[in-house]
Amino acid sequence: LRHQLEKENADIPKLSHFALRIISENNFPTAAGLASSAAGLAALVRAMADLYELPQDSTVLSRIARRGSGSACRSLFRGYVAWNMGERLNGSDSVAVQLAPASHWPEMSAIILIVNARKKDVSSTSGMKRTVATLELFRARAETVVPRSIKQMEKAIHDKDFEAFGNITMRESNSFHATCLDTSPPIVYLNDVSRAVMKVVEAINSAARKIIAAYTFDAGPNTVIFYEKKNSDAVSGTFSRILKRIRENNVENIDEITISLLKMGVSRVILTSVGEGPTRAGSLIK
Amino acid sequence: LRHQLEKENADIPKLSHFALRIISENNFPTAAGLASSAAGLAALVRAMADLYELPQDSTVLSRIARRGSGSACRSLFRGYVAWNMGERLNGSDSVAVQLAPASHWPEMSAIILIVNARKKDVSSTSGMKRTVATLELFRARAETVVPRSIKQMEKAIHDKDFEAFGNITMRESNSFHATCLDTSPPIVYLNDVSRAVMKVVEAINSAARKIIAAYTFDAGPNTVIFYEKKNSDAVSGTFSRILKRIRENNVENIDEITISLLKMGVSRVILTSVGEGPTRAGSLIK
Repeated sequence: LRHQLEKENADIPKLSHFALRIISENNFPTAAGLASSAAGLAALVRAMADLYELPQDSTVLSRIARRGSGSACRSLFRGYVAWNMGERLNGSDSVAVQLAPASHWPEMSAIILIVNARKKDVSSTSGMKRTVATLELFRARAETVVPRSIKQMEKAIHDKDFEAFGNITMRESNSFHATCLDTSPPIVYLNDVSRAVMKVVEAINSAARKIIAAYTFDAGPNTVIFYEKKNSDAVSGTFSRILKRIRENNVENIDEITISLLKMGVSRVILTSVGEGPTRAGSLIK
Repeated sequence: LRHQLEKENADIPKLSHFALRIISENNFPTAAGLASSAAGLAALVRAMADLYELPQDSTVLSRIARRGSGSACRSLFRGYVAWNMGERLNGSDSVAVQLAPASHWPEMSAIILIVNARKKDVSSTSGMKRTVATLELFRARAETVVPRSIKQMEKAIHDKDFEAFGNITMRESNSFHATCLDTSPPIVYLNDVSRAVMKVVEAINSAARKIIAAYTFDAGPNTVIFYEKKNSDAVSGTFSRILKRIRENNVENIDEITISLLKMGVSRVILTSVGEGPTRAGSLIK
């Protein structure tokens, strides 16, 4: 793409023939099932586009990022992003689109509980291949469950309807892990700490008499728990009190085993919200 | 049924109008997801049939036992038993049938690892109702996966083909737990100890370069591991060496975390084989 620009405009520096030395630094847990490779690839593609002063077309960059990590195609965009499955066999219409900017629903927050930063037994790429190859229930999920959930999720985000958002989020997480378990040999990403997280989220929602917290587990035991800022005390506050073993808990019925599992199993907590995609930190060409 | 016999034959004692005092004793873990209620109900029905000197028709008794616990319908028979789903809405053709007597395949053995004898979070009856009511993937499983597996399993037992038997057993266990996870809220029966058992079984099979051990988890974390007597050393021997922490293990690649989970999590081991159904222990009428 840079070479094309240089051919069209003789005035710009001839960068496209230089080799690149790339130094990548990362403050996010790697190989922990938290899409760090997607974030890294998106950041790399964004940095290259900035270096080469390419047109700021996220759709073009998203297609490039996707070649490094499938889910990186989402990470070029800002705010709420969907990755459309597409219909063509070559995948050319399997692209990400922005559903809404982060400012559309700024209440949305997330706690990430890092359960185990050890390298996963199954990297998500080989995991995916096993799943597609051997699974019994995968077809039902790909053909009917996921497309329906995507439509429902788009509506939930459009309406800023947290109950619908949370319900779909948890249902999809469980359905995904169900299909992982249904491969041969099975892939079991959830562990006892993840089960404890699920229990606490269920207890929080039960106490609130509606869904104010929603867990989701990607390809690992770590959790992302979504909630709205107005429910910070009931959601992130409850996890904070459990992890600090503060007794005066707002939530009843959380048993000692669940508390111990969380206390022993959670090694790091990240509080975050919906972001604005990769940004340029400083000048790249000295 | 006894009343009917008494009407037909005036010579037999008139027992049917007496009230019964039933004392039930049990040496098997209860409420641990090991079908103890099925065993108990089958034993009770068998005892009543013996007391009342009813005709020894397992099919009739099986229908009665099924009213107390669905899976008790299987437990009246000897050896290898299938429970047919049936087609009628009232369930009248949902009956158990014997596939083969125990003597057909006497090599078949089982280790039961009791992981946690605490009462389950969800009793299997309410669990089942939740599953049927809320699940996304259940339909695919009930309509196509299970009937196909039943046919394959009947053939595997007929052919005494352990590899096929083990493959179907593990696949069905995983598929069942996948559907449990896919309810809302999810039912997660498997825990870290179950995962450790799965890993050891995979390592045993991997070392043997074929399936010589097959795990299955019912509605709880406890495991039944099937194997043939000729592979006792490789299967039950491996578990025995792990639980006794004997280092000279036949199986490589079993990591320390897996061993610790098993050592800490398994509270009891039962070695058993395919049985002959409930039998009369002694005289019931003094």
